[in-house]
Amino acid sequence: MAEKKRVVIVGGVAGGASAAARCRRLSEDSEIVMFERGEYISFANCGMPYHLSGGIASRDELFVQSPERMRSRFRIDVRTLTEVKRIDRERREVFVRELKTGREERVGYDALVLSPGAEPIKPRIPGVESSRVFTLRTIPDMDRLQAALDREKGGRAVIIGGGYIGLEMAEALKSRGFEVAVVEALPGVMSTLDPEMAAFIEEHLVAKGVELRLKSAVSVIRETGEGGLELELSNGQSLKCGLAVLAVGVKPEVSLAKEAGLAIGGLGGIVVDEQMRTSDPAIYAVGDAVEVRHFLDGKAAYIPLAGPANRQGRIAADNIFGRKSVYQNTQGTSICKVFELVVGITGFNEKSLKARKIPYEKIYVHPLHHAGYYPGAEPITIKLLFSPESGKLLGAQLVGTQGVDKRLDVLAVALRAGLTVFDLEHLELGYAPPYGSAKDPVNMAGFVAANVLRGDVKICHSEQALSPLPGQMLLDVRTSGEFKRGTIPGAVHIPLDDLRDRLSELPREKELLVFCQTGLRSYLACRILSQKGFNCRNLTGGYKIFQAAAGGLKK
Amino acid sequence: MAEKKRVVIVGGVAGGASAAARCRRLSEDSEIVMFERGEYISFANCGMPYHLSGGIASRDELFVQSPERMRSRFRIDVRTLTEVKRIDRERREVFVRELKTGREERVGYDALVLSPGAEPIKPRIPGVESSRVFTLRTIPDMDRLQAALDREKGGRAVIIGGGYIGLEMAEALKSRGFEVAVVEALPGVMSTLDPEMAAFIEEHLVAKGVELRLKSAVSVIRETGEGGLELELSNGQSLKCGLAVLAVGVKPEVSLAKEAGLAIGGLGGIVVDEQMRTSDPAIYAVGDAVEVRHFLDGKAAYIPLAGPANRQGRIAADNIFGRKSVYQNTQGTSICKVFELVVGITGFNEKSLKARKIPYEKIYVHPLHHAGYYPGAEPITIKLLFSPESGKLLGAQLVGTQGVDKRLDVLAVALRAGLTVFDLEHLELGYAPPYGSAKDPVNMAGFVAANVLRGDVKICHSEQALSPLPGQMLLDVRTSGEFKRGTIPGAVHIPLDDLRDRLSELPREKELLVFCQTGLRSYLACRILSQKGFNCRNLTGGYKIFQAAAGGLKK
Repeated sequence: MAEKKRVVIVGGVAGGASAAARCRRLSEDSEIVMFERGEYISFANCGMPYHLSGGIASRDELFVQSPERMRSRFRIDVRTLTEVKRIDRERREVFVRELKTGREERVGYDALVLSPGAEPIKPRIPGVESSRVFTLRTIPDMDRLQAALDREKGGRAVIIGGGYIGLEMAEALKSRGFEVAVVEALPGVMSTLDPEMAAFIEEHLVAKGVELRLKSAVSVIRETGEGGLELELSNGQSLKCGLAVLAVGVKPEVSLAKEAGLAIGGLGGIVVDEQMRTSDPAIYAVGDAVEVRHFLDGKAAYIPLAGPANRQGRIAADNIFGRKSVYQNTQGTSICKVFELVVGITGFNEKSLKARKIPYEKIYVHPLHHAGYYPGAEPITIKLLFSPESGKLLGAQLVGTQGVDKRLDVLAVALRAGLTVFDLEHLELGYAPPYGSAKDPVNMAGFVAANVLRGDVKICHSEQALSPLPGQMLLDVRTSGEFKRGTIPGAVHIPLDDLRDRLSELPREKELLVFCQTGLRSYLACRILSQKGFNCRNLTGGYKIFQAAAGGLKK
Repeated sequence: MAEKKRVVIVGGVAGGASAAARCRRLSEDSEIVMFERGEYISFANCGMPYHLSGGIASRDELFVQSPERMRSRFRIDVRTLTEVKRIDRERREVFVRELKTGREERVGYDALVLSPGAEPIKPRIPGVESSRVFTLRTIPDMDRLQAALDREKGGRAVIIGGGYIGLEMAEALKSRGFEVAVVEALPGVMSTLDPEMAAFIEEHLVAKGVELRLKSAVSVIRETGEGGLELELSNGQSLKCGLAVLAVGVKPEVSLAKEAGLAIGGLGGIVVDEQMRTSDPAIYAVGDAVEVRHFLDGKAAYIPLAGPANRQGRIAADNIFGRKSVYQNTQGTSICKVFELVVGITGFNEKSLKARKIPYEKIYVHPLHHAGYYPGAEPITIKLLFSPESGKLLGAQLVGTQGVDKRLDVLAVALRAGLTVFDLEHLELGYAPPYGSAKDPVNMAGFVAANVLRGDVKICHSEQALSPLPGQMLLDVRTSGEFKRGTIPGAVHIPLDDLRDRLSELPREKELLVFCQTGLRSYLACRILSQKGFNCRNLTGGYKIFQAAAGGLKK
């Protein structure tokens, strides 16, 4: 039987609520008090854009757990609208204040769990405090925005920030009949992705009628006479709109922890050990307020995600009640729906790999999400990042309309299990025509990556194809129809099926940069060429990735 | 550069076609000859039920690769309608016969790949040769059945055999307007599943208007005067119909291999080593004709699947051209759509575990396939089989309408990577409301299984709940409404939220078998009870699994 303790939890969403419920399951007789500054606990903030879009019709759906249920089922002493103002670590007490009555109280603890979450970053833009500028983190945030949307009934809205929430909100506002512009200071949307993969999303946003302003920071926000806003951009342009949503990211909420003298990390989050213990062993911290370690290299990272927050709450509870339970770090698996596109990522992107000086190779494939002969097959673009020595998976990025979530999860498990691209070749996945192919997209990605590591084919990347060296020559092996619709400047054209008969046309002293639409036919061409004594490289991902990358470079 | 060889391939579908293409990629100058007895190569036999249903409108879609394309792109010498009659292993020659002309020829080989596939099992039932009894393996099979369906335009059809193809055909014929009965000799459909999981499919088939005759073998087939069939069943009943589809399974096609004196295994398939080499080192065999080793215990198994067949073809080609490439065994991952249900399995089922005397434990969960607050969330029933010592995953079975394929593949990768149920708790999967939950169904299955192994809760199974021992008592902790709609005979009812206040009503000398609808509330009840000194067990999978199992037991 677990020891009887008094556990105090600060914050009633995700990690906090998980910790509370797990504490009760582990210790029926402990006292568990949960303080929440807001009115609501355990709400689904990931669902808020979908309520605003109308997709989730009832606001009540967002309340995953009510204070009443937490009391009746788990005997948790839930105190909403109650703020923890200060921690007295020496006495193991928190000072709390009921926001409605102003009543203050000290509450002692044996163990304290901090789950204060994160708060939206508010850049210091003049005018950012306008009542027409909204953020979206809490239920009151959502209610305010909902009221504004109901009032405005269309018109123009500007989303400041092209990350996950920004793009979900772009879709939500579009579906509510607004004209939507997205303003992003960086050169591309969704900075967790590499630019050529983000380019697919940008193209889709534009196709859906969203106005994209990249490399554009908002410098001033002005309320206009007509009850709207005018946003001045860093590039001198300006945008008028009825309302703006500020979604430029979140930062860990650490004021309470900081004031209590708990260690704060270089990335701004609360520092915890593998048992989710802060620098004070009686105090745990979980969720979006903490820095984690990255699964792949154990280095500090700030990756606020709902799944890890819930697991961390559970782990903190385990450790409070004497079970050694270890958080197994975060790999950054995330997924987002952007209109009809689905985009997923796990592990490192190229930027992180470069920053961490980890050697990597990359390949791209565009296989169909299920058997091509079964109606509705759609391509998924998969980018795989892996160790050039061992083949160990380092990261994956996926974009497509169907079946993306499945391949993301398969790759996320493969990465966590330490699998290599050679292992991906052998994965035995479920195949029936509506669900996959005998060679699943993940197998295909494995084949292509393993072919590179085994030396069956050398590859090149879009940057090289865009600026070939003097000793290099571009060779397009697509059909004449494809070639005519557009190719890489300077490319010579020989369709794959003619290649064997036209080898004499090709220079033996040059390195051939061979490409097709996706990288498959050019791989076959490279196999022929290299066996015939030519020096060649396959453009991985083909013209499709080249276009994405070149578009990205032009921006 | 790979050595120049003459490679002869027998069979032009799946494994054979994969081997041929890979051989060409590895050796531009080798001679590659592919013999196919039928008219077509590389056709999608997994797609045939969907063409018959009308889902795949065009028959041409089923031809993944044409002989012309194999010639022009890969320079494969494709000889359709040509049968390999005999192998002269000493001279390394095959004797072939062109079926149209009768012309015979000897063709020498350096390496021979056998990919003859499997053939439908035809039980020796009197009348089975009737022209109104169809099998479905080849394109001509399909064409014959298609013509019959066009002719009959409805009426009654009987499917003999309740496996994957039988059930896909049941759906196809239903959608073509036929009244459909499925006759299965075993007590349940889909014998790769355990009976209580198959019960969900049986229930769904009946709900879709399919007549199910389980434990019923067909003993005689008679053509009736009116141009139909009458099927006499082993139980004395009879069924009239316009046509019957025989789908009782397949057996490896080994006549050529046998005649050549190659080793045939105890399961009837060609014996191969890990490089796909038969007992003659110059002869390889791949696909549905070979016995494989099971991934989990290395023992011989006959698991005909398209994915493995393709991989084996590739591996045979690698080894022919001097690369040591090893087939990493088969784990039996398969998936099937049955009307709106999707059913998946990977690894061992209980029957295999028992036969192999491998100790196991099992749990069931029924989580929603994505966030409950996002519209359209549907439950998935997951059964996990795992080692009671190490927690290592031994098998999984899944049934649901949405998101089943994803969790199957996640579990298939986890099983292949040797993960334990403890690892499943930590998997970091993609979460956004349309795709999953912060605690994904696979995490949930991991939590529940790990809770058992950590001793947080003891469990019991439906068999025990159906026949409690004298010292045991059933406790239903669901709501009054649920209890009234039906419970396990003899159960005492105390709703979970009342339990803490009514502990005095429970006997301390008895072992309580606690249940709710799914196993979640009863787990919470068990945590309370065990900490209060009661002896209790949680019925894993709850009343939902109990009903499925009890129904199964009653059949």
